[in-house]
Amino acid sequence: MAFWKLFWNKTKFLPINQDSNKYDCKKNSLLIQDFDYKNQKINIFLSKDKNIDLYELEELCDTVGWVRRPLKKVKIAIEHSFLTISLSYEKDNKKKLIAFARATSDNTFNATIWDVVVHPEFQGKGLGKILINEAIKQLRYADINTITLFADPQVLSFYKHLGFISDPDGVKGMFWYPH
Amino acid sequence: MAFWKLFWNKTKFLPINQDSNKYDCKKNSLLIQDFDYKNQKINIFLSKDKNIDLYELEELCDTVGWVRRPLKKVKIAIEHSFLTISLSYEKDNKKKLIAFARATSDNTFNATIWDVVVHPEFQGKGLGKILINEAIKQLRYADINTITLFADPQVLSFYKHLGFISDPDGVKGMFWYPH
Repeated sequence: MAFWKLFWNKTKFLPINQDSNKYDCKKNSLLIQDFDYKNQKINIFLSKDKNIDLYELEELCDTVGWVRRPLKKVKIAIEHSFLTISLSYEKDNKKKLIAFARATSDNTFNATIWDVVVHPEFQGKGLGKILINEAIKQLRYADINTITLFADPQVLSFYKHLGFISDPDGVKGMFWYPH
Repeated sequence: MAFWKLFWNKTKFLPINQDSNKYDCKKNSLLIQDFDYKNQKINIFLSKDKNIDLYELEELCDTVGWVRRPLKKVKIAIEHSFLTISLSYEKDNKKKLIAFARATSDNTFNATIWDVVVHPEFQGKGLGKILINEAIKQLRYADINTITLFADPQVLSFYKHLGFISDPDGVKGMFWYPH
């Protein structure tokens, strides 16, 4: 990771200042310039735009072995998420989605982060950390204090490093599935 | 519990049939007739109306010792919940809120149930079970398959009896709080 430019504006190449939370969420922000990928330098962008290519998102989910979901439902889920965060890189004027997360919320007290996915070729390079920290930042902007998620055993320590606590005071995450 | 009339229509006193999910959510449904309460018979109603008296809701939360929350935030939370369920009883033409639950959702895949509260004088009488089963029913109508919640240790067995599983396949509920 040659050069770290969290929230630089793509077009003006100026650091976004205290008004950063006012930036147009439809635009992509340059997140990392000259990221090393397969002996090349690529630029990685962050977007909160919900206008996501659903085929590309499902392709990304395929790379980590998730079960295919009906695109119609994926569309509804994105529309009704409080927040989506996408990371993509640009090469030869083409954008490629490499990481994604979304959160549902009551817009004020609680939020739950779902569908956290990083393309295997980009795992272990700090992008998951950026993704979750950005989600926390955006949820905190909205004055949401309780941020929750459900973590598979293999990612428990990842989330612990980011400040998440499992079963605080014996509170247990519980699931109900159709039966 | 003398007489069980789940989803009887209040005004017509007709059982709601297969079209029950089409009933006007603004109206109250008679849930239990002649419920024994302090040597009297009362009628208990169920409502999915989000137009809730916020003072009354916070009073109900007081009875179980919850920390007071800003009403402005409670209003936002209710507005942005996928579902609210209120139980109340009517006596001398006055309604009194006795139980409440709400759920956030992406409207298609996942939902999370929050703020489950039953007035202490009405606990242990099956109302909590009705509340949660009604939430499950409504979420299932919307084809939502994964229903989650975070349970305090003392209510773990209550939710287990309703079909909720804690930590399935080692999946852990995690929390992030401001620090």
